Amino acid sequence: MPDPVFERIALVGVGLIGSSIARAAAEYGAAGSVALYDMSDEVRAKAAGLGLGEVADTLEAAVAGADCVILCVPVGALEAVAKAAVPHMKDGAILTDVGSVKKQAAGALFAADNGKVHIIPGHPIAGTEQSGPEAGFPTLFRNAWHILTPREDADEAYQAAVVRLSDFWTALGAKVETMEAGRHDRVLAITSHLPHLIAFNIVATAFDMETVEQGEVVKYSAGGFRDFTRIAASDPVMWRDVFLNNKEAVLECLGRFSEDLAALQRAIRWGDGDMLMREFTRARTIRKAIIDAGQDSGAVNFGRNEAVNGKAKP
Amino acid sequence: MPDPVFERIALVGVGLIGSSIARAAAEYGAAGSVALYDMSDEVRAKAAGLGLGEVADTLEAAVAGADCVILCVPVGALEAVAKAAVPHMKDGAILTDVGSVKKQAAGALFAADNGKVHIIPGHPIAGTEQSGPEAGFPTLFRNAWHILTPREDADEAYQAAVVRLSDFWTALGAKVETMEAGRHDRVLAITSHLPHLIAFNIVATAFDMETVEQGEVVKYSAGGFRDFTRIAASDPVMWRDVFLNNKEAVLECLGRFSEDLAALQRAIRWGDGDMLMREFTRARTIRKAIIDAGQDSGAVNFGRNEAVNGKAKP
Repeated sequence: MPDPVFERIALVGVGLIGSSIARAAAEYGAAGSVALYDMSDEVRAKAAGLGLGEVADTLEAAVAGADCVILCVPVGALEAVAKAAVPHMKDGAILTDVGSVKKQAAGALFAADNGKVHIIPGHPIAGTEQSGPEAGFPTLFRNAWHILTPREDADEAYQAAVVRLSDFWTALGAKVETMEAGRHDRVLAITSHLPHLIAFNIVATAFDMETVEQGEVVKYSAGGFRDFTRIAASDPVMWRDVFLNNKEAVLECLGRFSEDLAALQRAIRWGDGDMLMREFTRARTIRKAIIDAGQDSGAVNFGRNEAVNGKAKP
Repeated sequence: MPDPVFERIALVGVGLIGSSIARAAAEYGAAGSVALYDMSDEVRAKAAGLGLGEVADTLEAAVAGADCVILCVPVGALEAVAKAAVPHMKDGAILTDVGSVKKQAAGALFAADNGKVHIIPGHPIAGTEQSGPEAGFPTLFRNAWHILTPREDADEAYQAAVVRLSDFWTALGAKVETMEAGRHDRVLAITSHLPHLIAFNIVATAFDMETVEQGEVVKYSAGGFRDFTRIAASDPVMWRDVFLNNKEAVLECLGRFSEDLAALQRAIRWGDGDMLMREFTRARTIRKAIIDAGQDSGAVNFGRNEAVNGKAKP
């Protein structure tokens, strides 16, 4: 086992992500010890029962001795939690998060800055539709991207902290990239936020159809619908906060999606088979580019991505 | 091995479904012999190379001695192929299909009726995003629903033919249901056709975003987008024909979907977190009903569906 990257980490919020970090840090020796806190009594009790680490009774106690504090709470709660945590953190410790929206997370975390900690927003592109402390597992981050959106006007000590946080996520098996926060939010709006919104929406639409029995929708869901229900099973609080906090980029994607869908709708109404054929063939080509890039080997594997950047362009 | 249900079947069109029927019929002893025909020279050569059965040079030769002819062609081609096949079929033989739209299929097949064959439209709710004769496999239909939409004004000989065709699909591992064609098309519009249209659409939308690199979309597709690309990789010709031939039901679903999506869009724009929370929670509840129904155990398993019909209602 290599030396731990951090002597001690603190995880605030013990859901799927928090509990997976606790398990992975122990499994891969990335942290000497793990402190945990969750505002829910029930979740704290579960975390203790699962042996995820030293469960603290208060946020202050959890973060006090940590070299790195990782906030694993919905993005809407980040600012309040960061403000409660920072005054109790060690000088020179790192504060990071795992939120799916990074411009807003940066604002929320930097609002708590006391000039004595290193604030480095982050986002693991990993997850399942499960939630809660029981849902976590140590291999969740293996071969997944982890995006850091560090401040740009930073001194050497901050740069060293970014390297260390990067080493930590690398130790958990992730591939770390740094990116400007606004760029992250635009990329994730289309690769993650819009797909989730659409999945939530089609599930609701299907169950509101009066012309079809709900039992039939369930029964024949193998035709394609079932894939959407899996995505739509994700944590509602987390996703509400994502959409409220990445409004601009999501609305931009949504507008384009609706425009494109209206064009397909018109083609169906007017029987324009050539247009449908053209669009469906294009979608298939894109899928092939993703397979060629090794993106879909069951486990996530982004290894050969660089080679496809040019190829995927139409 | 039990006695074969049919002495000889003929498969017209040797793609994913046709080649899977050939493999399954051999594997489970459901047919004494299998004749195959495809209009493509290349596909016929591949089918022969794969040892899928007796590959005929003409449609007439393939269907001539068969007790059951199964048309595995895109629904837009059904009428022409049925009209070419029926005059060469044995008296009393069965003509069926595997098309995803059944009102149109019924029209296409019955247009070829010569009063000497039993025409029974059918649809296996099974498939993958792959296509072509190499893509087939014998277990494709195991535990999947197979829907037959027989004519209702039928004599005893026809009823006996329906039972026999049902036995054939049961021998391949499918669970057979009969249903009125229009009802089938409404159910499949929401459980299969709309999900596919949306998947095709979002993939195109993502690759037209100027604000995001296409390489980035590929790279970070694990966030949800990748699930859509898999669905969107399905055969373009098949899907074009589905949308052109189930226009009314698809447009109805699409209108509702767009309305619902507009309401979510408005909630995002105006920051209505309560509305988002309510809708996302509802979607999650529906997912749970599907899991409770045993719908998502990796393999398709619809066994306990009856129990959930009431439970799934909000």
